[in-house]
Amino acid sequence: MTGGRWSRRSALGLIGAAGAVGVTGGFAAGVARDDDAAAPQESVVPFHGRHQAGITTRVQQHLYFASFDMTSTATREDLKSLLADWTDAAARLTQGREVSPEGATGGGPYKPPDDTGEALGLEANALTLTFGFGPTLFAANRFGLESKRPKELVDLPSFAFDLLEDRFSGGDLCIQACADDPQVAVHAIRNLSRIAFGRAQVRWTQLGYGRTSTTSKSQSTPRNLFGFKDGTANVFSNDDADLGRWVWADGSDQAWMNGGTFLVARKIQMLIESWDRVRLEEQEAIVGRDKARGAPLSGGSEFTEPDFDVVSTAARGPAIPADSHVRLAHPERNGGARMLRRGYNFVEGNNDLGQLNAGLFFLAFVRSPEQFIGVQRSLAQDALNEYIRHIGSAIFAVPGGIRTGESVGSGLF
Amino acid sequence: MTGGRWSRRSALGLIGAAGAVGVTGGFAAGVARDDDAAAPQESVVPFHGRHQAGITTRVQQHLYFASFDMTSTATREDLKSLLADWTDAAARLTQGREVSPEGATGGGPYKPPDDTGEALGLEANALTLTFGFGPTLFAANRFGLESKRPKELVDLPSFAFDLLEDRFSGGDLCIQACADDPQVAVHAIRNLSRIAFGRAQVRWTQLGYGRTSTTSKSQSTPRNLFGFKDGTANVFSNDDADLGRWVWADGSDQAWMNGGTFLVARKIQMLIESWDRVRLEEQEAIVGRDKARGAPLSGGSEFTEPDFDVVSTAARGPAIPADSHVRLAHPERNGGARMLRRGYNFVEGNNDLGQLNAGLFFLAFVRSPEQFIGVQRSLAQDALNEYIRHIGSAIFAVPGGIRTGESVGSGLF
Repeated sequence: MTGGRWSRRSALGLIGAAGAVGVTGGFAAGVARDDDAAAPQESVVPFHGRHQAGITTRVQQHLYFASFDMTSTATREDLKSLLADWTDAAARLTQGREVSPEGATGGGPYKPPDDTGEALGLEANALTLTFGFGPTLFAANRFGLESKRPKELVDLPSFAFDLLEDRFSGGDLCIQACADDPQVAVHAIRNLSRIAFGRAQVRWTQLGYGRTSTTSKSQSTPRNLFGFKDGTANVFSNDDADLGRWVWADGSDQAWMNGGTFLVARKIQMLIESWDRVRLEEQEAIVGRDKARGAPLSGGSEFTEPDFDVVSTAARGPAIPADSHVRLAHPERNGGARMLRRGYNFVEGNNDLGQLNAGLFFLAFVRSPEQFIGVQRSLAQDALNEYIRHIGSAIFAVPGGIRTGESVGSGLF
Repeated sequence: MTGGRWSRRSALGLIGAAGAVGVTGGFAAGVARDDDAAAPQESVVPFHGRHQAGITTRVQQHLYFASFDMTSTATREDLKSLLADWTDAAARLTQGREVSPEGATGGGPYKPPDDTGEALGLEANALTLTFGFGPTLFAANRFGLESKRPKELVDLPSFAFDLLEDRFSGGDLCIQACADDPQVAVHAIRNLSRIAFGRAQVRWTQLGYGRTSTTSKSQSTPRNLFGFKDGTANVFSNDDADLGRWVWADGSDQAWMNGGTFLVARKIQMLIESWDRVRLEEQEAIVGRDKARGAPLSGGSEFTEPDFDVVSTAARGPAIPADSHVRLAHPERNGGARMLRRGYNFVEGNNDLGQLNAGLFFLAFVRSPEQFIGVQRSLAQDALNEYIRHIGSAIFAVPGGIRTGESVGSGLF
């Protein structure tokens, strides 16, 4: 159990010498990208690279997202050491290894195990861990990072229909864990939370049980809880021009953001029971797409560009209505702005009226928060607003990729 | 989109004529049982049979469980018609079809779609839907079922350390949805809830993100959130003698329970952060097994029977301590009593102290509730009690399997 070359499976002797999954030549590869939908469930995503993994990576099936606050007494040194410790642990966990060389059972009987053990025997399941920094981390009289704050890293403005709750919003730090097995994602956040003890504490977390977007056309477009395909017009991970224009920051504002991006997180409750009482024609008019195939109401198939000039005689107006989601969210109406979305569905029991607490945990990676802000302002007219409520909001600056031997955010210090 | 021979995928034309998944000769097969761990993710579990599916079925990866109450004005006829409608819908959903022939898009533009659509394009994913009846359904002055109540179907007694909350407890009816894709399980419960509108309403629901047990030794034993293997001593689905003795009711009390069973559901919160501070030796002493392999502390490997007489010189007492979970839960200490367990992990954010709301949603199928009651009383001495809290509890009578043309619980009327 010592040394780094043991996976969780080989540590248990389950697959013996063949078990050193993830310890391959790809470990030191450049861009952490995997847009092959046919990749096996056991795939391992490189941790190091020019960009952080978990952004252009094929969207995994499950999410566990955590927002952290630094403790009230934490110092700049605490932050620095935390990021170093998190980096070491993440480099191991994403490769299917235990959180430390001692792991769950190798540290001897007289101390709490380093690793909590619930992922023993599970493969890496394409785990990615993506780190971000919230605006509050750069506040005055905290960690001496005022001059390192990206200009655009400020709280999002209020939007029409916002019903935000503190308990789902904000945070000094975030970690997005995505994996094809939820236990692997939960295990990673739990162990990173333990490492943070005394330095940072969990502010809020979000379990996403199923992806609602894709970053590759070779992955089928999933459906959200309104039953419609979501993310058809996403930025795809194989389009370097789009990524350069809409996702990756270039470091001209803050050098440490070179190869980084901004992450916008929104917890969107869906009023499922109300939506389910809407007739099909109206559902499709609200979304602007047909339900079966996801084609725009102006005609064609899922990936046909919407034509907003097409007129419908039946509707006595535009085939894609003026207040439809597709029209208002479309780049054409928003100065061309696009986003790389990686949202997940959530379901969390029900309220006292027996209605579902469910919806979409919206995650978008953007070169500038203005891309999101512009679209969200445009959506003030969205007919969909009758059926959704934004109840949580957060923004994080996501630093560029991590090189071997470096820590995430080392450019801050 | 009319007729019954279309799967959700073929309805969309995604896989054309080859898409009629689930409409196979196996549909009318006898026992709904699948203990082959190597079964493909897209497998279809027969709905009809001598027993309900979802009990001895290979434990799927995900759970969505719902407890319902009949509405205050619901009549006996309402209950009867609800069970008939649920049966029709469940027979379709479990075979990968939409909830009705009209489905999500085939009912025309002027009505709300029958099917909510979020599972369009997804296979059956081994979906099973298992129905049960709570004690309150048989109360006087409700549905005229007083004489049909199984003698043993009464609320569970109070146990040491119970901290039960109404919002996680009880219910007139339950549906256990298990599938290898969580969206498929959520979709099923959501659509069955819609069908119940005006007759029954959701009381509480539970999402389980990962299985914590197995009903077959060919499936690897999963780990709970304490990092230990769970369910090693389960009743296995290939052991007919055990099933007959510990799981299936014979109908000698109530004829309609022939081939049925009782379902005990317990929501068990785990005090994760406290547990994570316990040293390895103590964790293993509390559980009575070693963490790495799940072997009893008396020696051997995972499936070696614990030997409670083995003495440990180091521990100056029994190798498997007197207050260990394994000893107190073991059949040898409980009149031989065993259970078929199908529990799932849950994670639901965190409390105001930043601690995880997480634990085990315990589900056990037993021929008699006494099997559970005896073991749970024995566990009053369990050292594990310091780290867990039972916060929800329910019991349901699960009727026998459904024959083609019949409705679930038709023997009640």
